Amino acid sequence: MGNCLYGVTECCDRPKNTNIRLSFPAVCFVWQTAMIILFGVFIRYDEESDTHWVEFKKEHNITSDADNDFYFRYPSFQDVHVMIFVGFGFLMTFLKRYSFSAVGFNFLIAAFGLQWALLMQGWFHSLDYTDGKIKIGVENLINADFCVAGCLIAYGALLGKVSPVQLLVLTLFGITLFAIEEYIILNLIHAKDAGGSMVIHTFGGYYGLSISWVLYRPNLEQSKRLQGSVYHSDVFAMIGTLFLWMFWPSFNSAITDHGDGQHRAAINTYLSLASTVLTTFAISSLFEKTGKVDMVHIQNSTLAGGVAVGTAAEFMLMPYGSLIVGFCCGVISTLGYIFLTPFMERKLKIQDTCGIHNLHAMPGVIGGIVGAITAAAASTEVYGKEGLINTFDFEGAFEGRSPTIQGGYQAAGLCVSLAFGIGGGILVGLILKLPIWGDVADEHCFDDEFYWEVRLWLLLTVCPLRFHRSVLMVIRGSDT
Amino acid sequence: MGNCLYGVTECCDRPKNTNIRLSFPAVCFVWQTAMIILFGVFIRYDEESDTHWVEFKKEHNITSDADNDFYFRYPSFQDVHVMIFVGFGFLMTFLKRYSFSAVGFNFLIAAFGLQWALLMQGWFHSLDYTDGKIKIGVENLINADFCVAGCLIAYGALLGKVSPVQLLVLTLFGITLFAIEEYIILNLIHAKDAGGSMVIHTFGGYYGLSISWVLYRPNLEQSKRLQGSVYHSDVFAMIGTLFLWMFWPSFNSAITDHGDGQHRAAINTYLSLASTVLTTFAISSLFEKTGKVDMVHIQNSTLAGGVAVGTAAEFMLMPYGSLIVGFCCGVISTLGYIFLTPFMERKLKIQDTCGIHNLHAMPGVIGGIVGAITAAAASTEVYGKEGLINTFDFEGAFEGRSPTIQGGYQAAGLCVSLAFGIGGGILVGLILKLPIWGDVADEHCFDDEFYWEVRLWLLLTVCPLRFHRSVLMVIRGSDT
Amino acid sequence: MGNCLYGVTECCDRPKNTNIRLSFPAVCFVWQTAMIILFGVFIRYDEESDTHWVEFKKEHNITSDADNDFYFRYPSFQDVHVMIFVGFGFLMTFLKRYSFSAVGFNFLIAAFGLQWALLMQGWFHSLDYTDGKIKIGVENLINADFCVAGCLIAYGALLGKVSPVQLLVLTLFGITLFAIEEYIILNLIHAKDAGGSMVIHTFGGYYGLSISWVLYRPNLEQSKRLQGSVYHSDVFAMIGTLFLWMFWPSFNSAITDHGDGQHRAAINTYLSLASTVLTTFAISSLFEKTGKVDMVHIQNSTLAGGVAVGTAAEFMLMPYGSLIVGFCCGVISTLGYIFLTPFMERKLKIQDTCGIHNLHAMPGVIGGIVGAITAAAASTEVYGKEGLINTFDFEGAFEGRSPTIQGGYQAAGLCVSLAFGIGGGILVGLILKLPIWGDVADEHCFDDEFYWEVRLWLLLTVCPLRFHRSVLMVIRGSDT
Repeated sequence: MGNCLYGVTECCDRPKNTNIRLSFPAVCFVWQTAMIILFGVFIRYDEESDTHWVEFKKEHNITSDADNDFYFRYPSFQDVHVMIFVGFGFLMTFLKRYSFSAVGFNFLIAAFGLQWALLMQGWFHSLDYTDGKIKIGVENLINADFCVAGCLIAYGALLGKVSPVQLLVLTLFGITLFAIEEYIILNLIHAKDAGGSMVIHTFGGYYGLSISWVLYRPNLEQSKRLQGSVYHSDVFAMIGTLFLWMFWPSFNSAITDHGDGQHRAAINTYLSLASTVLTTFAISSLFEKTGKVDMVHIQNSTLAGGVAVGTAAEFMLMPYGSLIVGFCCGVISTLGYIFLTPFMERKLKIQDTCGIHNLHAMPGVIGGIVGAITAAAASTEVYGKEGLINTFDFEGAFEGRSPTIQGGYQAAGLCVSLAFGIGGGILVGLILKLPIWGDVADEHCFDDEFYWEVRLWLLLTVCPLRFHRSVLMVIRGSDT
Repeated sequence: MGNCLYGVTECCDRPKNTNIRLSFPAVCFVWQTAMIILFGVFIRYDEESDTHWVEFKKEHNITSDADNDFYFRYPSFQDVHVMIFVGFGFLMTFLKRYSFSAVGFNFLIAAFGLQWALLMQGWFHSLDYTDGKIKIGVENLINADFCVAGCLIAYGALLGKVSPVQLLVLTLFGITLFAIEEYIILNLIHAKDAGGSMVIHTFGGYYGLSISWVLYRPNLEQSKRLQGSVYHSDVFAMIGTLFLWMFWPSFNSAITDHGDGQHRAAINTYLSLASTVLTTFAISSLFEKTGKVDMVHIQNSTLAGGVAVGTAAEFMLMPYGSLIVGFCCGVISTLGYIFLTPFMERKLKIQDTCGIHNLHAMPGVIGGIVGAITAAAASTEVYGKEGLINTFDFEGAFEGRSPTIQGGYQAAGLCVSLAFGIGGGILVGLILKLPIWGDVADEHCFDDEFYWEVRLWLLLTVCPLRFHRSVLMVIRGSDT
Repeated sequence: MGNCLYGVTECCDRPKNTNIRLSFPAVCFVWQTAMIILFGVFIRYDEESDTHWVEFKKEHNITSDADNDFYFRYPSFQDVHVMIFVGFGFLMTFLKRYSFSAVGFNFLIAAFGLQWALLMQGWFHSLDYTDGKIKIGVENLINADFCVAGCLIAYGALLGKVSPVQLLVLTLFGITLFAIEEYIILNLIHAKDAGGSMVIHTFGGYYGLSISWVLYRPNLEQSKRLQGSVYHSDVFAMIGTLFLWMFWPSFNSAITDHGDGQHRAAINTYLSLASTVLTTFAISSLFEKTGKVDMVHIQNSTLAGGVAVGTAAEFMLMPYGSLIVGFCCGVISTLGYIFLTPFMERKLKIQDTCGIHNLHAMPGVIGGIVGAITAAAASTEVYGKEGLINTFDFEGAFEGRSPTIQGGYQAAGLCVSLAFGIGGGILVGLILKLPIWGDVADEHCFDDEFYWEVRLWLLLTVCPLRFHRSVLMVIRGSDT
């Protein structure tokens, strides 16, 4: 079925070729082969995942295997991993006929992206200059997942409107840009951003929005019929929401300092998210006629608090500070869905399928600002002398930097992420505008049928006989 | 849609005002603001999540960050967190038209409840008398999630029959009562209850049942059409069941002693739950005509073994002891669904939507009794001298208490939780009976449409053309 | 409903008695009772989960509870647990009308199997000869879950065609065979197989395929109507796929050496799986007319890389080595779904519902071969002297064994797992062919209705009035 109705050339106003039988496998094979070669040349195990660990332990007087970084980070890594694949993937299943693409292409680009991220981030952060190899351990895996998150956020803005080949191109460039801006922000500027409010969410959000702006589809209302949810697709999306929400404390604490750093980041994120939930429900209810709640808000805005506390989670933000951040973000994000998204689509020509501006971009910017303020306000009274140095890594080239100056650099980091997001997005958008990527026509957006074998799925097929009888009963009951 | 059919005043026998546009946002905003203020006054990081950890380590001769409580408890905390939000939330999605409320309001009250629980439990357990502040760490987060579980259990009895405002009120009082009974049981009586058979399940179960008794709806059969499941809603519910089942070992071991305590509690719970599954299937099959199994039993009764082993999981219950507890609970809980729930509804006027009496209340009482017996039977031969003292905390004011006496106090603890559950439930039920909370009429129970924007969700809307043809084909095929 | 249409004797060509009201509960009760007795006689806590841990610590100069094995293994255990119950369970929910059985019977046989596995594996591996007791800790729980995985793989081949009683019998024998072959491979031959490519996947795969061959159903096309998926059942299956995919690094590292062993196994598996995803998408797209992707491949073949890296994950396979393994397995497994599965059904009379030959059996064999080669190629230059001994446990009776010889023994291990799988499968298949187990007739396969209470679940029942109007509108709109 389908082909007769939705043939490639028959019933489209402006015929588009969605045949990706050559380009898609070719890109997958060539890129994966390239990964194998680059990994062969560059990537090795670090001293904690190498069989020489037993000697390393002796040399460094490490008495217990429990001090292997694996045990400090692996549980958080797995939580982050779930957020990337189930969280992001299922959050986007809300569309009634685009769940396969949501969860499937999310899977694809994350699996490609994390390999490319290991290389890109490795060159910047984990290159061993003695032998020219990148040495990887569990922290690299987490960072690769983080890097991928930026591209998945961008996918959220473009959901339903791009082909898998475009998504792979978006990911290739996205990861590259990410690694560069991350290096500038974390290493050169020496801003702190453990949970990635700036590096991940601001960058990823504006990267996706800029691409969407370049790829503006003027006749998108022609596929309006598919742009909503059905009852059970909304429940599927809640799986994504909840796994993101629950594991966000792990996200923000995954690469912070061992000990108090991870502990504090988890607490702050836990509290901020809890606060967001209440204000999201409140605003959602306030703007409906009889106080009803909108699933779109609950699925998305409840997460804004986790984004906004990303930078400051490892600082002494204080429990009430986290609650305040969450409070504000629930309000702002939900209002964004109600007022800003329609405005952006109509006036700014930015079509944002999942509303990532409200969930990632805005809260990311807020997070950057909160981080800058919290950093500037840090003092030895609150942090302790050693605590201050540890938390902000005022060591080496950055010894003696004052918290106030750190605040300024935090703000500078935010600007860098914005610039990379917007600038990179426009560039990549122009590349993706080329008519070679197999994307669908405006009237065929949000439909799995162009990239997936979709079987006869109407309930009719389940048991035609019984269904038929029921339909007849209903019809006869009132029609005769 | 909907409003024309299910208008607020038009088609109800006894019109009820379900408009909560004022009360619901107001409660959310005011309570969240109160939380911020109270957190600002009272709550600070404890020494393991504060930047002073680096100094604390030196003072206490702690050589490795691995000894920060975070690493002993965080994986269990995340498992418990999943149980609270995905486990409880999805377990209740089984109703065909109430999945949004199940998972959504579960989310809301848990997010509010955990904040209030941090305060209430903090005042009783974590108050630092030197500066009057509550110092929180990962163990407090776990306990807050535990505290919330009590209220979510109560929601199970009331599912489909109360408004979100009522749920928030239920949670406010539920958390308060919980913190008090917990203080009495754990601190004053000094009963042990790591997995909360008494403190969480008995209390939560009877709290919900008592409220349901007070809020009895005589005409509930008018919404009978919505009181069942559909095929896929039952599959959604299994997500909840399985995450509860799998992570229950973490639940019962999350706050037990480091080392053997956590280890043993996890093993006991794992075994008890495995045993429950087999007897649940057996009883379910035995009471159906051709040996068929009922999804309701599998979704719920398979969990009873985890509840019943909650108190004794950290004791030397022995692996076979755990299996016996699980065996009995699978039988009792499934029989409860078959015989007791209908009886309670007809004779005792207690409408228990999810059957929490069979899943939480009864197994909780059994767990309390098992705990009392196991404690009374403890001996230095089995536990070792130090092991006995460690396991039962026979220290400080309780030094020298004998296991037999401990058994008596365990039984006393069970009575306290029963008293608080029933007494508190009746009181809160009376409050919730006031006609100001926006709950629905009897004939509109179990319907998301009154509190959620439900979009046109029939499959018809997906692709009317193709659907139409299929319907016609079916009709023509046999009708002409 | 249903009984009038699908009565036991009325409408079947060859009437079969699917009434399991006696046999099913009887088996559950008797076997669970046997477990209690055997556990009572044999199973006790090991020294790390016993209250004597406090004394054990002193004797062995263990200073921190962090060195309790619980903290090294519990997070991985919980991930494995999720794979067994949610991963395997939901992966099989793809059939449109067999989701209850997929997730429900998976639950049942896993819960029984893990108890029996604790005993069987305990006798071989954890028997304390001083008192004749099996001493269990967290590693035993992981191994029991592993053991169960073998039987769940076999269930994949038989999905939809066997009764729950048959499944329990299959599990009883499967666990027994597993424990014996595991003892031969790991202890006698001293092959290494941390992730179970041979022990779990090769054995489980060929065990299931052999049973399916013996139980060949010649008229299975009579239930063709139920042998596919519907849209949402495919999304449910993706939950299973993703949880298996994400947690596979934990699976392969769960019982490897503390420290670098677990660390390296997780990295290798992470990389292999990522690589598999790209080649699976590529091959799937290459063999469809317009480059569309098939959900069946994405749900299954993306996991093949995790299977194939099971044996070698703890070796110094190198990151690029893992990518190569994943690359090949994605290709081979997807081609298997396209060409081999139909061939096997038509020519070899092996009906493989879930395609476990492509997901487990073939990749398992590849994994065994990769393991043998990697072991044979090991050298002290790469591993370090101590590292080599640690990794391959060249200690005790196996001191001085060379890597080359180890490679030969690895290959021998593979042959043992194949022999046990095929031989055991044929034997058990013959037992399951007896006409006493209550399995369905060929035309009633893949239907939940014979073993589950399935409620009226057509959407019609949700809101007949509104649905009726919609249907009428559609019909009138174009028919008059």
